[in-house]
Amino acid sequence: MSKSAWQLLGDYLKDTQLLGSIQSTLYWDQNTSMPIAGSNWRGEQLSLIAKQLHARQSSEQFEILIKEAKSELQNSKEKDDFESQLITDRFRNIDLLEQDFNRQKSLDPQLVVELATAKSEGYMCWQEARKNNDFKSFSPALKKLIALRTEQSNQLCEERSCWETLAQPFEPNLTIDRVSELFEPLQKRLPELIQKAETITNKKSEKWDLAISDQEKLCQILLNDWSRDPANTAIAKSPHPFSITLGPDDYRITTRIVKGQPLSCLLATAHEWGHSLYEQGLPSKSHQWFAWPLGQATSMAVHESQSLFWENRIARSFSFAKSFWHHFENAGAPIHSGDDLWINLNPFTPGLNRVEADELSYGLHIMIRTELEIDLLERGLSVEDLPNEWNKRYLHLLGVSPKNDTEGCLQDVHWSEGMFGYFPSYLLGHLISAQLTKTLEEDLGKIENLIESTEISKILGWLRKNVHHYGRSLDSEELVRKVTGAKLSPTYFLEYLDNKLEKLSTISK
Amino acid sequence: MSKSAWQLLGDYLKDTQLLGSIQSTLYWDQNTSMPIAGSNWRGEQLSLIAKQLHARQSSEQFEILIKEAKSELQNSKEKDDFESQLITDRFRNIDLLEQDFNRQKSLDPQLVVELATAKSEGYMCWQEARKNNDFKSFSPALKKLIALRTEQSNQLCEERSCWETLAQPFEPNLTIDRVSELFEPLQKRLPELIQKAETITNKKSEKWDLAISDQEKLCQILLNDWSRDPANTAIAKSPHPFSITLGPDDYRITTRIVKGQPLSCLLATAHEWGHSLYEQGLPSKSHQWFAWPLGQATSMAVHESQSLFWENRIARSFSFAKSFWHHFENAGAPIHSGDDLWINLNPFTPGLNRVEADELSYGLHIMIRTELEIDLLERGLSVEDLPNEWNKRYLHLLGVSPKNDTEGCLQDVHWSEGMFGYFPSYLLGHLISAQLTKTLEEDLGKIENLIESTEISKILGWLRKNVHHYGRSLDSEELVRKVTGAKLSPTYFLEYLDNKLEKLSTISK
Repeated sequence: MSKSAWQLLGDYLKDTQLLGSIQSTLYWDQNTSMPIAGSNWRGEQLSLIAKQLHARQSSEQFEILIKEAKSELQNSKEKDDFESQLITDRFRNIDLLEQDFNRQKSLDPQLVVELATAKSEGYMCWQEARKNNDFKSFSPALKKLIALRTEQSNQLCEERSCWETLAQPFEPNLTIDRVSELFEPLQKRLPELIQKAETITNKKSEKWDLAISDQEKLCQILLNDWSRDPANTAIAKSPHPFSITLGPDDYRITTRIVKGQPLSCLLATAHEWGHSLYEQGLPSKSHQWFAWPLGQATSMAVHESQSLFWENRIARSFSFAKSFWHHFENAGAPIHSGDDLWINLNPFTPGLNRVEADELSYGLHIMIRTELEIDLLERGLSVEDLPNEWNKRYLHLLGVSPKNDTEGCLQDVHWSEGMFGYFPSYLLGHLISAQLTKTLEEDLGKIENLIESTEISKILGWLRKNVHHYGRSLDSEELVRKVTGAKLSPTYFLEYLDNKLEKLSTISK
Repeated sequence: MSKSAWQLLGDYLKDTQLLGSIQSTLYWDQNTSMPIAGSNWRGEQLSLIAKQLHARQSSEQFEILIKEAKSELQNSKEKDDFESQLITDRFRNIDLLEQDFNRQKSLDPQLVVELATAKSEGYMCWQEARKNNDFKSFSPALKKLIALRTEQSNQLCEERSCWETLAQPFEPNLTIDRVSELFEPLQKRLPELIQKAETITNKKSEKWDLAISDQEKLCQILLNDWSRDPANTAIAKSPHPFSITLGPDDYRITTRIVKGQPLSCLLATAHEWGHSLYEQGLPSKSHQWFAWPLGQATSMAVHESQSLFWENRIARSFSFAKSFWHHFENAGAPIHSGDDLWINLNPFTPGLNRVEADELSYGLHIMIRTELEIDLLERGLSVEDLPNEWNKRYLHLLGVSPKNDTEGCLQDVHWSEGMFGYFPSYLLGHLISAQLTKTLEEDLGKIENLIESTEISKILGWLRKNVHHYGRSLDSEELVRKVTGAKLSPTYFLEYLDNKLEKLSTISK
């Protein structure tokens, strides 16, 4: 029997996905095993695969396969061959494929090449500039990236502003107005909460550290408790922790040990495991399905909501500290109660560094970067003025001032690779996480109680059933409305922070 | 300026090599990091790359590129454009490319697919059969592989016997007559040496073991002493140790820890490091050169000669034991002198298992397998008779009898993947290693003295200068003659064993 158009499209997608997963394997190896001298050759391997991938994703053959599958689907719909959910899913898959294909196709291949080069040059230039605290040497690369990305947005020709167009691959349907609407209440309230936090006189936690092997052991205990199955998940170390999926049954995370910060490894592990659990909960159905859009993550904000959930709602919770502290004591840490561990897990001090920021000040970092990149792309902020603007806003919102640009506007990697439109996802993830948790608690009872009675599997089961399995069938705002019955709002996140501060101030007295 | 035909061919080869090295990266990851559930998808990734590789290696485009580069080279030779060594090298490169291309091209693609399937089925079937000690269940798969490989040999249509044709990719220009000529003196002498060894009453070494981390530390000391540069070499653990090159500056080895065998890890590391040193010493010249035949290993026997050199001539030497034993004592092993370590490193007891065999009996294992596979392919031995023949020859040559086929003819993986013609390389490696060492000693003085004065770099330098850099420009016998001035012979290996036995018997008294 000859294959249906749908099956032929699936075969094509599967080969594309195989190539994509080979690319991911090269990336994983690069960050976990590769000796440094392997970089050049690895770069050439990655270029080869990227070229093949782009060719497949913008080929005429692919366009025809999509068209034929779509018309086959329309015919079968008329003949009422399928149950309606399957039809809906398939139409959604086709829509997304058309959307992705049109994006790939509308780009001038010359621009694609120039962008790839500018990204890699920008990244190298940024590394040097950051090391030497020399923003000026980075300016030309940043200008070039802004020009190329603006040109890309023009070629994509969407009914959106430039920044919005570039944000779409990370956050479908996001608009600047919506970002403002969601972030404004936070911009007002977070500085107040930070002030309040300063009045809490935390028991000063002593400086302490743990041996690498002990930190690894603690992470193993954590992941065992959190349902890790070594048959389909692997763990390694890398300079920057990440989570990656290499196949439909092959999930990997990395973590890192930071000297003098004995909780960094555990929290990074919790965070990356949250990403991985989302990937593990995506609809797979079959190897083939793994290659379709509906089998993939819907947005970076939703992804981040899941990692932040496990990092902040679980690992930084009071109940977790209560049930886990004795593992730290056994490892030789000066932790002698749940309170001790909890206070250590929740320090609140506004600083200059986004990655190390606490839950309170984190949002302000994101708002500063988001505003700045919109200003750069759409509102005429010149690259030369960036350092001043950065420093001004830090002083205004967080009350701190970078000593230099390395501590300031050179700290994040994103812009050096022309990655504009990504930053809001980090904060949206906090909001989504908080709002989903509210509904989870309505369904299952207080999350603190679930953690205390070590009913982690119930929590995971709820996320699998209510959040993960949608894949790209809903965008992030649709997902939130579907699960919580309400529009996405910053209220829940602020409520959560309020409660946490309250509890911390009680315990610290 | 437009590129020369030579450069265009180089570009093509480089992309092929990039793909090949991606395949190797997937293989490395599969054996060092991949969770078990990732196997199916990994299999599909590997098939995709294998298909692409075969297409590139047998394409018309490739054929034209070779032809054009060859005629360009012939013209420039007439014009006397190049120095003569470069011309010789280039012609040799073209010859080898033509040879490899013709092999790829003469195969029916249908056969290539059938063979790939039969190999993977054969491997799975063998695993089961070995587990269940059920040779009968493996027979059909073995028969099929023999039939397909015979067909392959017919299609290749070389002026060689079937077995010889199949051995070529491992051991260029090897003939059955030459194998017999080299192995016969060993078949006569080795059993005598084994008898002699039995008269040596070794100080019984107690049973002892070391912690994993201690074994890892000992391997690190070893590799530091042996010039490992972490910038271009990585180490990991895998069930079966191997060495692999992932790029012109990216070398990897694996090792393993075997419970109850505290020297296994160190010796495996020494062995794989020997393979890696050979790869590291191959002519690279540039990234591009890495992709040409002359940048590659010439044969499995030469490869094995290098790994066996570091394992047996260095790590199992008396001087090494004398200089290294205190590291074992420090790690808590019951090793209190060089004699102790040396005796532990050199147990002589003929057994049934090839991989664990000592240097004395190892050759007999190889001879049995080599004879049997020639008999299977060319002399009418039926698959059904294989177990009986195996057992008979073991009893005859080694004086031991397998209790069952799992201990007997099911022990090695090679035949299950249709890999015929590979076995002799293991023993040829011993002979080459011994003969090269003889010349090394003529040039640098006694190897035991060099090891004792920890002049390992001199030894490595000699190998780099005299052995490694030839790549595929000489086959293994040509290489031996070039370096040692003599025809390859088993004498040196037997001499070496004689001396070792002598010394061991003195020390054990």
